[in-house]
Amino acid sequence: MSNQKSILKIGIAGLGVVGGEVARQLTARGAKLGAAAGCELRLVAIAARDRTVDRGFDASAMEWVENTTDMASIDELDIIVEMIGGSEGVALDLVRAALGYGKHVVTANKALMAHHGTELAQLAEENDVGLLFEASVAGGIPAIKTLREGLAGNEFSRVSGILNGTCNYILTRMEKTGEAFGDVLADAQKLGYAEAEPSFDVDGIDAAHKLTLLGAIAFGQKPQFDAVSVQGIRDVAAVDFSYANTLGFRIKLVGVAEPGIAPRMQTCLLPLNCQLAKVDGVLNAVEFLGTPIGGTLSIGPGAGAGATASAVLADLIDIGRGRITLPFGRPVAELAEMDVSGQRNVDDTPFYLRLMVVDQPGVLADVTKVLQALQISVESLLQQGRSPDDVVPLVMTTHETSGEALASALAALEELDVVRAKPVAMPILSDEVEG
Amino acid sequence: MSNQKSILKIGIAGLGVVGGEVARQLTARGAKLGAAAGCELRLVAIAARDRTVDRGFDASAMEWVENTTDMASIDELDIIVEMIGGSEGVALDLVRAALGYGKHVVTANKALMAHHGTELAQLAEENDVGLLFEASVAGGIPAIKTLREGLAGNEFSRVSGILNGTCNYILTRMEKTGEAFGDVLADAQKLGYAEAEPSFDVDGIDAAHKLTLLGAIAFGQKPQFDAVSVQGIRDVAAVDFSYANTLGFRIKLVGVAEPGIAPRMQTCLLPLNCQLAKVDGVLNAVEFLGTPIGGTLSIGPGAGAGATASAVLADLIDIGRGRITLPFGRPVAELAEMDVSGQRNVDDTPFYLRLMVVDQPGVLADVTKVLQALQISVESLLQQGRSPDDVVPLVMTTHETSGEALASALAALEELDVVRAKPVAMPILSDEVEG
Repeated sequence: MSNQKSILKIGIAGLGVVGGEVARQLTARGAKLGAAAGCELRLVAIAARDRTVDRGFDASAMEWVENTTDMASIDELDIIVEMIGGSEGVALDLVRAALGYGKHVVTANKALMAHHGTELAQLAEENDVGLLFEASVAGGIPAIKTLREGLAGNEFSRVSGILNGTCNYILTRMEKTGEAFGDVLADAQKLGYAEAEPSFDVDGIDAAHKLTLLGAIAFGQKPQFDAVSVQGIRDVAAVDFSYANTLGFRIKLVGVAEPGIAPRMQTCLLPLNCQLAKVDGVLNAVEFLGTPIGGTLSIGPGAGAGATASAVLADLIDIGRGRITLPFGRPVAELAEMDVSGQRNVDDTPFYLRLMVVDQPGVLADVTKVLQALQISVESLLQQGRSPDDVVPLVMTTHETSGEALASALAALEELDVVRAKPVAMPILSDEVEG
Repeated sequence: MSNQKSILKIGIAGLGVVGGEVARQLTARGAKLGAAAGCELRLVAIAARDRTVDRGFDASAMEWVENTTDMASIDELDIIVEMIGGSEGVALDLVRAALGYGKHVVTANKALMAHHGTELAQLAEENDVGLLFEASVAGGIPAIKTLREGLAGNEFSRVSGILNGTCNYILTRMEKTGEAFGDVLADAQKLGYAEAEPSFDVDGIDAAHKLTLLGAIAFGQKPQFDAVSVQGIRDVAAVDFSYANTLGFRIKLVGVAEPGIAPRMQTCLLPLNCQLAKVDGVLNAVEFLGTPIGGTLSIGPGAGAGATASAVLADLIDIGRGRITLPFGRPVAELAEMDVSGQRNVDDTPFYLRLMVVDQPGVLADVTKVLQALQISVESLLQQGRSPDDVVPLVMTTHETSGEALASALAALEELDVVRAKPVAMPILSDEVEG
């Protein structure tokens, strides 16, 4: 029930925002963390780009590893904490080597696990060591532990989440202030909420890495990033938020994993009263729907030094207490290939649709004719104000519609004379954890 | 890393709402649960009051245990699932005996653990078996695992929660409809959301049991139910909700555990934009504030067969996978006595105050004189409408005030001629997981 060792010796590779914070926590709060882990968690080796930086902890007694991958073979180390990032290169080399040398690995690297999770989990199993990656999904929220252990008795019908704080910040602010995407992004970059190269966040890739891992654990499948359908938030206009609100919805970038179909990152509408819709700003949230639980939701900081370090420390404590388990909850041999063959049932998703149309008689007839031909049924329609001959938004929500019919409709609508911009369509997601 | 046994044999004592659901899950979903657990979870023995009831699973091959406590000594059993309830009597006898016989125990019994947790954890340790009680707190939310494992690297400044679905349902409905407490309670009883004898719920006792356990794990202390300050929701009037809303708050029954002071169940005001304030209806929520994470929150069904069974199944799977850990996260010898010696700092809590006063000149002067004498400073004041010589509500929020000063003020205010009912005071709780 408890770890045999009285000291676990740790090496950290990568001393950036999160790696530095983990090192500071281990050195400054050693006694408390030791009491939680049931053994001393001693940081004895570090590797980073620049040896000369003062990172706020005393590294004088620690071994400085010049060539990062060499850390894997340092005999006294029990655990390697990989905080380098990136799905390939040094991070991959180090983790492979460390597992091969029979060392536990703790990582925050979602890209690495989304791309190479199966191989690395296999290596961990063969070497009977832990490969823990709580910090890679939703920062401080113990989403992986919740899915793999806390809710392990459930058959999941859906795991979904707001998995990128940058996107949620941008969307929340666009909604509140009516600013355009580009303006909010520029400001978020100034405030440090968005990277100089924002694509990884705003195009949904970072969130899709996390979704890949959640889906793999939820459905007992090998993680397969290439199978995820990825969409970001660039197409949303400020005007969409007020229309969505009028119709009873909020707009969020949500990752959705369901059994038998490809996981998808999508900018979508959520009913105002559902819990996910209430998660604002840089917060992340993960929602678990299944049987027998029904639904449950966790909300917390998805990034940042402290929140991510909390997850890394929890993994280290789990190793200390001997709570090492299989990375994806079951042996790799029992993980299925990700089943993406299924389609969502025809007529299964309602959509929000915004067209920029010329305000003139007959527009509505033209538009509804297209929809009718594809058997898409309109649930509600908004056309606020009148402005003859100007281009104005025409907003609709549809009843359940297949993605195929919708795609045909969008193509046909764009061809109409009265439609003056690319139509914007977003799915409307139902939510079962309602207040 | 994995359990040695290929079959874990289980006995369930108590086949009511939750116990029956656990039995149905184990029999109907055996293959899936076995895959999650890494071994077969086989239900082989049951005990309940009435053998003749059809509970929706085939019990023909199971051993029926006539005298429930005898289940503890059945040699082939690896795990006893205690679903009887109550802090004393058969439940206590069975759990004590089962641990003594070296069997793992899984229980949903918050009263038992809040009153006897220390003794039982000690017994589990001595016999090197698991004592798992995830189902005892917040139903389907894996609150105990989150606190003990997922956030184990944190030093908690506060653990708080909405821990009783019945109370949250009643408060939510009073707020929405303006109905009186008694009317909503009567209806909740009809709907099955409240017991015929509602005191256990509405007086905060059930929630206080859960709070006792959360506080013990969060602060590494022995659970000590008697130290918890317990208050329910009977004193809230419908009018308080609209005043609270006008002032930017909602009213919730919240359990709060902080280091060094007695945990308390209190009906309090929460800022509208905080996450706990957004949790409505029968949902429960647990919020964890600490360093380095900042804050995180879990929301889910706090009761019901499915949600509670989910927690029991997770405990069984943990045993299957060998993830058995110390009940309170560390050895009993390392648990401190609950430190309740501390007081909240003087001047540390803002309060909401409602007086029923005669609407006549000079009332405000009388009231503020009392407050001023006790150095209680008013932050905002509401006196809506005028109704000369009638009794009307006078509502205030105060700046940070000590509980002592507030108690003196309430006593002095009640003595005033113009005050015609017992003053109502509720603390205003700040919340750090803001959207």
